[in-house]
Amino acid sequence: MQQPADPPHGFAEAEYRVRLARAQAAMAEEGLAALLFTTAPEFAYFAGFVTRFWESPTRPWFLIVPAAGDPVAVIPSIGAPLMARGWVRDIRTWRSPDPVDDGITLLADTLREVAQGPIGVPMGSETHLRMPLCDWQRLTGEPGLAFTGDEGILARLRMTKSAAEIDRIAAACAVASRAFDRVPQEISPGMGLDAVFRRFQGLCLEEGADWVPYLAGAAAQGGYADVISPAGPEPLRPGDVLMLDTGLVKAGYFCDFDRNFSVGPPSQAVQDAHKRLVEASDAGLAAARPGATAADLFHAMDRIVTGGAGGSDAGRLGHGLGLQLTEWPSLIPGDHTVLEAGMVLTLEPGIELAPGRFMVHEENIVIREGGADLLSRPASAEIAVIGA
Amino acid sequence: MQQPADPPHGFAEAEYRVRLARAQAAMAEEGLAALLFTTAPEFAYFAGFVTRFWESPTRPWFLIVPAAGDPVAVIPSIGAPLMARGWVRDIRTWRSPDPVDDGITLLADTLREVAQGPIGVPMGSETHLRMPLCDWQRLTGEPGLAFTGDEGILARLRMTKSAAEIDRIAAACAVASRAFDRVPQEISPGMGLDAVFRRFQGLCLEEGADWVPYLAGAAAQGGYADVISPAGPEPLRPGDVLMLDTGLVKAGYFCDFDRNFSVGPPSQAVQDAHKRLVEASDAGLAAARPGATAADLFHAMDRIVTGGAGGSDAGRLGHGLGLQLTEWPSLIPGDHTVLEAGMVLTLEPGIELAPGRFMVHEENIVIREGGADLLSRPASAEIAVIGA
Repeated sequence: MQQPADPPHGFAEAEYRVRLARAQAAMAEEGLAALLFTTAPEFAYFAGFVTRFWESPTRPWFLIVPAAGDPVAVIPSIGAPLMARGWVRDIRTWRSPDPVDDGITLLADTLREVAQGPIGVPMGSETHLRMPLCDWQRLTGEPGLAFTGDEGILARLRMTKSAAEIDRIAAACAVASRAFDRVPQEISPGMGLDAVFRRFQGLCLEEGADWVPYLAGAAAQGGYADVISPAGPEPLRPGDVLMLDTGLVKAGYFCDFDRNFSVGPPSQAVQDAHKRLVEASDAGLAAARPGATAADLFHAMDRIVTGGAGGSDAGRLGHGLGLQLTEWPSLIPGDHTVLEAGMVLTLEPGIELAPGRFMVHEENIVIREGGADLLSRPASAEIAVIGA
Repeated sequence: MQQPADPPHGFAEAEYRVRLARAQAAMAEEGLAALLFTTAPEFAYFAGFVTRFWESPTRPWFLIVPAAGDPVAVIPSIGAPLMARGWVRDIRTWRSPDPVDDGITLLADTLREVAQGPIGVPMGSETHLRMPLCDWQRLTGEPGLAFTGDEGILARLRMTKSAAEIDRIAAACAVASRAFDRVPQEISPGMGLDAVFRRFQGLCLEEGADWVPYLAGAAAQGGYADVISPAGPEPLRPGDVLMLDTGLVKAGYFCDFDRNFSVGPPSQAVQDAHKRLVEASDAGLAAARPGATAADLFHAMDRIVTGGAGGSDAGRLGHGLGLQLTEWPSLIPGDHTVLEAGMVLTLEPGIELAPGRFMVHEENIVIREGGADLLSRPASAEIAVIGA
């Protein structure tokens, strides 16, 4: 067999051992006997199990991190070969989908075996339980099992990235930076926005993205109303501001930043707004250091883009990223998470040029001892021009 | 403002009115006062709201389909402009993320206003609740609200596609068919599998895919062990069987099928296996008609690939598709769903050539009155060759 021993996009076992040890230390503090996980980033984080098969919602997947000992995977048999290429040795499978019992009995038996005490499940913000609710009700009714929240352990662990993780996010950022650099050469006035989106995703792949889970953006005269729409066929016109916001994946990790382009010469208002946005992300970068809070970064940028009005309907001016396009914390007035070295964040200020006409600018940074470094190659204050 | 009135990838309002009427007829039968939805395909199905922003797990989204009247969207304000381009008029927003109350009070108030009676939530197989579990617990504790399952209404509605939906799935299949046709010209022996995956996704985009949420596959000598792995850097070697399995999206709808390629001349065993797989999918197609069951299709194919042994660890020999890469029903012995005209399915037989060496072949079909039609351009019995 030619198939390699290491799973694609995994790390060396030592990386997972550190994560496991941190999780188990936190579990001891919180009095948890195990953590139960059901989603893709959790499988990637603890098991090195990275697959696009999560796109199929059919089968539930379970990963148990016990208070002592190594993780146990309780998974559909279709996933056993890939899981076996990683470091998790205890792999229990069933033939899924099974309309009568889709893994619940096997999971309950395994939990009773490895967890003598409360089992923590992520229940807080930015989490969800990836299994049918009726199966969850069945599981919680199983004798001998007690479920509770994870006390925020997962979020705390994942918020601070290891050096190996930061390298991968930096690699993803480098791919997107190169793809954005090619936009003025590859995109022309008159192209439909849908064709622009297709070509830009192609550029991301050519520059080394493994896949492109996220691309949103807009093109409209002097600013855009909407930053989350897919693209329609409307052609790029002189005076449009084109924004492309990508979350591409390299070796399992995301970048998440955007770039703005003026189609033809920019108006003074657009030039000024772009400069202001870069000034705002620079202010966010300057404020970013261990000990500052997520809210501090919000205010540093908000002072520049609104004069301190408290933000916009987008709801935040940045967020964490890594195994997900977006993760904790949120750069909002109400998030008082204290920044630590190793956190990776987006800085994402927005400006309203006129009612319903916005521009948004985004960079990716990593918190270091004493400050922060950019991971994205920063945009220049001058907005780039297409069709110059 | 240049932004168009219609949301990208929506249908005419009449399409949604039919879906709403079918849902409300089913709700009347089941005694439900409303249905509550939280996931991307449900928003696409009832609201025409299609965005890649679902990639961000940060914010919860809620859509209420009441027993009478039009749907009500309770969503983060960042989504209001896109939602307002569609047919849903009652759009209530909050500024998310809100660590204190992320939409739950607004949702509870809205449900109390529009639903006098039990509220159905999808809880069955292939569903999940996309919101934090602690918020779900808070919602179910709200006075005046009673939640129950959706009695399978969502699955029954979505399993049978409209003519407009079938057109979109056919368009996605046509894109993938063209991309697969170009593989022998674009992919060469010696290329790394990761480069193959990148190039193939580029081909899908060049041929018209809006995005490529799913690509899995493998390349190994005389068959592969694993069909869900991402790609590593190992180069294609003579004697490898390369399999590429894509779920690309066109106007919001998926295709899902694969193709096998022999790197250099195929062995007799590989040639025979490929012929057998095509024979099996042909048998599935011949068995597919209204009145047959999902299990009937399983057995028609299983007789050919195993002699009737009852399947493999992959767990099934096909499934529904549409707004998701995979959806109900499953082609397994235990799924007795009766096929109806308008259902769209994959036929996905697999053969084990030797222990741990498989080949899998997949086509997409639509059930019609009296039979079924292929949506994918069918593979020839002769396996295609790379580096011929």
